This record gives sequence, C-alpha cells and structure tokens, in this order.
Amino acid sequence: MSLPKISSSSAIQISRIMRPDDANIAGNVHGGTILKMIEEAGAIISTRHCNSQDGERCVAALARVERTDFLSPMCIGEVGHVSAEITYTSKHSVEVQVNVMAENILTGSKRVTNRATLWYVPLSLTNVDKVTEVPPIQYEKKELEEEGKKRYEDQKLERMETKQRNGEFIVPSVNQEEYTVGYSQSSLIHLVGPSDCTLHGFVHGGVTMKLMDEVAGIVAARHCKTNIVTASVDAIDFHRKIKKGCIITISGRMTFTSNKSMEIEVFVDADTLVGDTQERYRAVSAYFTYVSLSKEGKPLPVPQLVIESEEEKKRFEEGKGRYLQTKAKRQAHMQSLTQQ
Amino acid sequence: MSLPKISSSSAIQISRIMRPDDANIAGNVHGGTILKMIEEAGAIISTRHCNSQDGERCVAALARVERTDFLSPMCIGEVGHVSAEITYTSKHSVEVQVNVMAENILTGSKRVTNRATLWYVPLSLTNVDKVTEVPPIQYEKKELEEEGKKRYEDQKLERMETKQRNGEFIVPSVNQEEYTVGYSQSSLIHLVGPSDCTLHGFVHGGVTMKLMDEVAGIVAARHCKTNIVTASVDAIDFHRKIKKGCIITISGRMTFTSNKSMEIEVFVDADTLVGDTQERYRAVSAYFTYVSLSKEGKPLPVPQLVIESEEEKKRFEEGKGRYLQTKAKRQAHMQSLTQQ
Amino acid sequence: MSLPKISSSSAIQISRIMRPDDANIAGNVHGGTILKMIEEAGAIISTRHCNSQDGERCVAALARVERTDFLSPMCIGEVGHVSAEITYTSKHSVEVQVNVMAENILTGSKRVTNRATLWYVPLSLTNVDKVTEVPPIQYEKKELEEEGKKRYEDQKLERMETKQRNGEFIVPSVNQEEYTVGYSQSSLIHLVGPSDCTLHGFVHGGVTMKLMDEVAGIVAARHCKTNIVTASVDAIDFHRKIKKGCIITISGRMTFTSNKSMEIEVFVDADTLVGDTQERYRAVSAYFTYVSLSKEGKPLPVPQLVIESEEEKKRFEEGKGRYLQTKAKRQAHMQSLTQQ
Repeated sequence: MSLPKISSSSAIQISRIMRPDDANIAGNVHGGTILKMIEEAGAIISTRHCNSQDGERCVAALARVERTDFLSPMCIGEVGHVSAEITYTSKHSVEVQVNVMAENILTGSKRVTNRATLWYVPLSLTNVDKVTEVPPIQYEKKELEEEGKKRYEDQKLERMETKQRNGEFIVPSVNQEEYTVGYSQSSLIHLVGPSDCTLHGFVHGGVTMKLMDEVAGIVAARHCKTNIVTASVDAIDFHRKIKKGCIITISGRMTFTSNKSMEIEVFVDADTLVGDTQERYRAVSAYFTYVSLSKEGKPLPVPQLVIESEEEKKRFEEGKGRYLQTKAKRQAHMQSLTQQ
Repeated sequence: MSLPKISSSSAIQISRIMRPDDANIAGNVHGGTILKMIEEAGAIISTRHCNSQDGERCVAALARVERTDFLSPMCIGEVGHVSAEITYTSKHSVEVQVNVMAENILTGSKRVTNRATLWYVPLSLTNVDKVTEVPPIQYEKKELEEEGKKRYEDQKLERMETKQRNGEFIVPSVNQEEYTVGYSQSSLIHLVGPSDCTLHGFVHGGVTMKLMDEVAGIVAARHCKTNIVTASVDAIDFHRKIKKGCIITISGRMTFTSNKSMEIEVFVDADTLVGDTQERYRAVSAYFTYVSLSKEGKPLPVPQLVIESEEEKKRFEEGKGRYLQTKAKRQAHMQSLTQQ
Repeated sequence: MSLPKISSSSAIQISRIMRPDDANIAGNVHGGTILKMIEEAGAIISTRHCNSQDGERCVAALARVERTDFLSPMCIGEVGHVSAEITYTSKHSVEVQVNVMAENILTGSKRVTNRATLWYVPLSLTNVDKVTEVPPIQYEKKELEEEGKKRYEDQKLERMETKQRNGEFIVPSVNQEEYTVGYSQSSLIHLVGPSDCTLHGFVHGGVTMKLMDEVAGIVAARHCKTNIVTASVDAIDFHRKIKKGCIITISGRMTFTSNKSMEIEVFVDADTLVGDTQERYRAVSAYFTYVSLSKEGKPLPVPQLVIESEEEKKRFEEGKGRYLQTKAKRQAHMQSLTQQ
C-alpha cells in the first residue's frame, strides 16, 4: 500500500463517525460539531501551506468564515467527511474552501450537507503580533485567480464594516465595582448530553458537581485574579433528578471571605425544555470554599468582599457562622488527636 | 476459565492519569475533576451492591455528599487513585466512603488528597419513581453498624433541613413573558483549556464556533420548545484572538423570527482574568439561523418573537432585512441555475 | 471544487491535529490515541464495505489486531493521518491494512509512525449474534488474493490458540518492593458510556485499546519513573463483545524486561452489572511493549524486573521467548530487505 502524497497545496480530508455526544436528543448532529471539523481542516491546510517555504514558522489563525448554509442535518452513526482546499492567497491571507458530506455507511447513501469558505492569516510562532507572508498558489486558469481576488476584496470590505458591530454586553457584570458580589457572580448553561447520564437517562451526580466546581472556580478567580484551588465543599443534597435533554443553569455568587478563603454559593437549576411538561426547578445547591495560591503554591490573602445590600450582609454573616463552626470542629479534632 | 467473583461489598478502585484538560493553567487539577471520579466510584459500587441479590434491577442515584476537604492539590501527570467502600446500608440507602490518593509515578511518592462520604438511593430501572430495597451488608463489629446508623440519622435530619435552602434564582430569566427576547436570552461561560488552543496558545476558531452554536441552539430551543437545527450561519469575523486561561462568555439573544426560522445574535466576550493586564473585550459576534423540526423532521411554524422595546424593534427590522436579502439572493441563484 | 468519490472498497483517510490531552507530559502522543484512530478508520471502511450490497444491514465488529509496531512517537501539534484500505475478504471477515503518518505542518516533514492490520466480522444490526456475509473484493493480481488467504488462515489459527490465554485475576497490592511485579501492577475501571459504543450498543474496539494502552503506560512509568512510550502491541484478539452499561476493569502487570524494553500484559474484564444475567468475563488480553526515553528522546536502560514467584518466573521466560522471536523476525526482515 502506497502512502498518500502530501504537497503544500494539496487537499486534506477529515472523516469521523458521528457519536451520541455530537448530537441533540433527536439524533441530529449539532451545527457546532460540523463547524469545528470544518475549522480543523482549514487550520491544517492553511498552516501547512504558509510553512511550505523557508522562512519564519507560523500558525494560521482564523480571521473570517463566510456565510454557511446547513443543507441537511447529519445523524448519529453517519460518517462526516470534511475536505478542504486552498482556493486563493493574497500576501497575508489564505482562502480555504470546504465541503462537508454525510455518508450513511449502512445504506451507502451520501449527500452534501455544507459548503464553507474560511479566511486565515499566518501569525509568527515567535511573535504573535507579526503577520508573516503567504506563499502564492498556482491557479489552473487565470479566471480562478481573478475571481479569488474579487472575493478577497469583498470580504476585506465587509470585515471593515462589521468591525463596528459590537452592541452592548448582554451580561452586564463589567459595570460592577470590583470585589462586590455582583462583580464576580457567574453562571453557565449546560445542555445535558448522553455521556452525562446514567442508564436511566438521568445526569450523574459527578457531572453536576464538576460543573458546580467550575462555576465556583470562575467566581473565585474573578474575585482574586490569581491561581485558585478548591479547599472544601459543604454537604450537597441532590433534591431532584435532572433528565437527559434538560438545560441546566449553574450559578455562583460569593457569600463570605475570611483572610485566606472565600465561600461561594452555587445553585443548579434545571429546565425541561422539550417535552410534555415544561418546568424549571432548583435541583441542587451547595457552598464551595476556595483559597488563592501564589506561584509557589503558598496561600495568599483574599481581597475582602464588598457588601452592598442587607441580603448580602445576611448571607455574609451566615457564611461567617459556617466558617467559624468548621474552624472550631477542626481544632477540636486536632486536640483529640494530640491527646490520644 | 473461572474468574474470581466480586462480592457485592468488596472495594473498588478507579485510577487514571491527570491530563492537561483536568487542570487549571497553574497545573492544579480542578476539584470538580476529583469530585467526578469520586462519584463514579460511588455509583459503581453502590449499583453493584444493590443488584447483588435477585430482584428488581436498579441504578443507584446520588442523594447526598457529605462535607469534603481537599487536603492537597493534585497535578498534571500524577495518577489519581479513588477507592470506594460501602460502609453502611439502611433499607433504602447506601453509604459509600471514598479515599483519594495522588501518586507521582516518576518519584513514587503518594499522598492522600481527599476523603468523602456519599449516600445513594437505588431506583428501579423500569420505574424510576420507585426506590428498591438495599441488601444488608455484613459488619466486622457491631459498633460499626451502630456508628453507621448514627451517621444515617444525622444526614437524614440535615437533608430535611437543607431542603428549604433555595433562595431566589440568580438568573431571573424565568420571570419573563414567553416569546420575548428576555425569555430565551442565554449565556454560557467557558474556561479556555489546553486542548482548546493552537500551538500559539490561542483558542481554535472552531472551538469558539462550536460554543456559539451551542448557545444559539439553547436560545432557539427555549423559544420553540421543539427539536431545532442550525440552518445557516452568517459571516463571522474574528476580530481579536482569545488566549489560553481566559474565561469566555458566549451570549445569545433572538433578534428576528420569520414564519419558519429564527435569527439569533451571538457574542463572544473574553476576560483575561489572571495576568498582568486584565481586560474584557468583544472577540467575535455572529448571526445564526435556526429552524424548528417536527418528530418526522418537517419544518414547523416558529412562534413570533414578542418585541418589548425600541432597541429590540430596531434589531428585528435589521434581522428582517438580512432575511429578505438572503432570500432574494437564493432566488436569483436558483434562476441562474435553471437558465443555464 | 469536485467532491471526493467514495466507492465501497475505496480507501479512507482520517486526519486530525494532536492535542495536549492526546499526549503524555513529555509531549509524546499515547499509543492508545493512535490505536483508537486506526480502529475508527478500520470500522468505517469495513462497515461501509459489508453494507455495499443489498441485504441485511450490519456493523463491522473488531475481531483481531495483528502485532503493531510504533516506529516513531508523534508529538502535540503534529497532524496524524490514518489511511485504511481493505486488502482481503473471506466469507465472514474483512482484513483492513492501515498506515499512520505524522506530519509536522510547520516544517513540512512527514514520517511513517505505524502500520497495522485489523480483522473485522460483520454482525447483523437486528440480531447481533448473527454474522452476515461479506461481499468479495476485486484483487489487482491473483497473488494478492493468495497472500491474503494465507494471512487469513494464519490469524485464524492464532486466534484459536490465544483464546486459551487467560490467566488469573490481577489483584492490586500496594506495599511492594520497587521493581517487583506487584509494585508497578495497576488497574483502572471504566463505566461504558454511549459515546464509547457502536450503533449496536457495543464498545468500539478502539476505545478498549486506548484504555489498555493507558494502563500499560502507568505500569511502565511506575517501573521506570521516566518518560515512556509504546513501542509495539502484540496481536490482540477480541473474544467477547462488551455491552453499553458494563463496567470494565483493565489490569496490567509487567511480565518481562530486556535491557531497553518492558513487556506488560493487559487484561480487560467486563462486568454486566445491570441486566437479566449478571456475569463477569475476560473480554480481551494483550501484550504491550514500552521503552523508556531520556529528555532528548534517546532510549534509556530499563531497570530489571525483580521476580518473586514461580508464576512470575514462568511469565518472564515466556516474555523472553516472545522478545527473542520478534527480534529474530525483525533481523530476518532486515536481511531480506538488504538482499533485494
């Protein structure tokens, strides 16, 4: 068997089987899964091309994706074939065209599901602010180069225009004062996938706890702006089960700070989006304690939480109560150990 | 070959190497990664035990985790060993005690990093609302049973009490009226990990697009409450790079609905949390179009977006403009095809 | 841009960038990551071929992987290209040959890292105990068919033989002396999830091999306390299928050390926890060979295994036999190459 030859401008093909985790509960592969495969193919082919001549080593960075239509959904068990080709180069950018095909390996049927055009810019490996030069490609016909140049000019113009489109921030946490509860408060959404679930179709408790710790860590990092690690987790009760296909919102807010620790309250709320009965309910809640570490791994002082309301003050006092209780328990435990 | 039998009460051990994606940029394994391993060990041993006698098949569901301390952080490249043992059973619940040890396989050093206690309840596989009976375990000494019973009573009491702790919803989107922009508006946070990044240490464009599609899909599903799929993505410009260790917030809101499609605007904002210069900036934005599908895969009518402000009205009109423009282009393209 | 044509017997290529999570801390991609990609390519091409004629729909299940050498380690950031081709078919089995190439897209250098031969058996989608018929392939020359037939007969014989290799269970022990078998012996447990499985609901062979390589790597690292990489994998027979929802225990122990290599025996045992019939059975077993590398990537001497029992001595001698046989084969192969 001979090895496939690879030239700097030759096409690349990425193929893989679509798995349950790539799809929604109806079995349709997420558009995002396909976009990720498309970009991986584009990044490989353009990085390879931009390094095909002697000179500075670079990595191609995605600058723009043209409008993309999803002509037909892909399904679990089908094989997605993504093939990419370089179709135009300017001095500092590469145009890649990508075709996506779905193949049902059981019936043998194939269909085109996507076509996409991506623009890459090569950035120097040693100096990421430097754009390196792109080696020119050979065109089969002169018209192909001219059409490419037109696409290049068009996208350049559009990029200029859309650079303005920014709008306000949807999540307004930046407008808050530092060290307040609102400043570090965070929440994330997670769409429950097959691998998150037991044979019953309910979310593993461990998956929920991992997401809770993730949110708590983001809150702690936003507050301290240092390397933070989990020190302890309060008892967690799992009041209600969370079903496959739900959307869960995990929210965290700081409740208390001592000299060297922070307490973060985390809530998990489940939305049964699709189905007969739609409801939203609190599934789990817990307190996480974090500490801030220096680069050498030593505990750092924690900036004190700025309290702005009666509610926050009440929660702070309750947190202080839990903190002092734990401290007392630990000291009693230490004493009992030394007296033995 | 006869394999040694595993007795229902025997211990279980889960071990695995800690990988870059399990840890933060300082190399400390996330507490959540360890909590997830702990729970996996607990779920296996308690499910095995609850099915050890003839009778209804069941899966053990996590009901409660006792307070857990993280004595020392684990690092990338170390092997985490999680060992679990059943220490008490009541009629309908199982107590599992778990020890976590970190082993540096290069130096041979080992240390205890965690101890945890988890409570499971067996749910019937055929009827998830039915709690099945737990086979009793044998205790080496009578005192062990008595101590277990005390822990059981204590946690039962605490569970009753904490069932009340709920507080308000941090993200108040539920209070919104259905079909408004605010009702379906969603955002998710992602902590950029090593596997999200290029050799430069910048996020792959494909990773960003996958998250954008995920948020857009959640917005669309919240609006329609049906099976939804990506129909197209507008041109996306990547204005600014996103660095490893950043926190990115991906937010989506509905801008426009036609009879059979929805347009969702998605923003990606990056926070450079840790480091010398802290800033928050808009990295990417784009419009996604989704359609709603019936169980048979046919397009369904989309509920009309309810507009509540001048801002929303302006965005709706702009969305309508994009929709009509795309439609016109497609018709022109079709005509050019038929005339060829 | 024209679409790639796919015929039932045409080759397939799977390519992707190697990420941090695919590799050890020294940056070398795990052998298991590559075995998983190899098996994915093999499963796609053989399932496609077995469904290329009208008749019962089936999924190709991995039955055996021939001895595989890892000629050179792959690194993070390189692109792995896995190309597979069907080279022989019998009535009920398919032989797939796979080439793996590493491409450094920054320097343009490419090298072959692996060659592998896999055997698949098609199982009916509706009745997994039924093996369906394989459509014959066309051979370019008559000799190719004859050579294939010989390989088919050889592997059939070997499969019969190795079906016996089972041995006792590996039970972990901690407080062992360094360099003994017990000291490095390791096992890990994995709960089979949906994304580990084929459309049938059985674990992909590639998923199993990845876990086997992970355990073997932990055993090797514990013994050497250095950067270790997979050098080769002995032929692996997949005696029994593993079903979704099973718990699998993967155990490894060192059997033999030469001056510069270690042989590790790995067992995969499946527990059908939930379901009508609960049983535990040996599903797969294999020998992995690892080498120890210095920071510069040069092979290091391996500490000799300390033998403590008659059993261990017997396994050591058998390992030595396999080692000498492989060495002799390689030398014969080299001579035949130089004489050509």
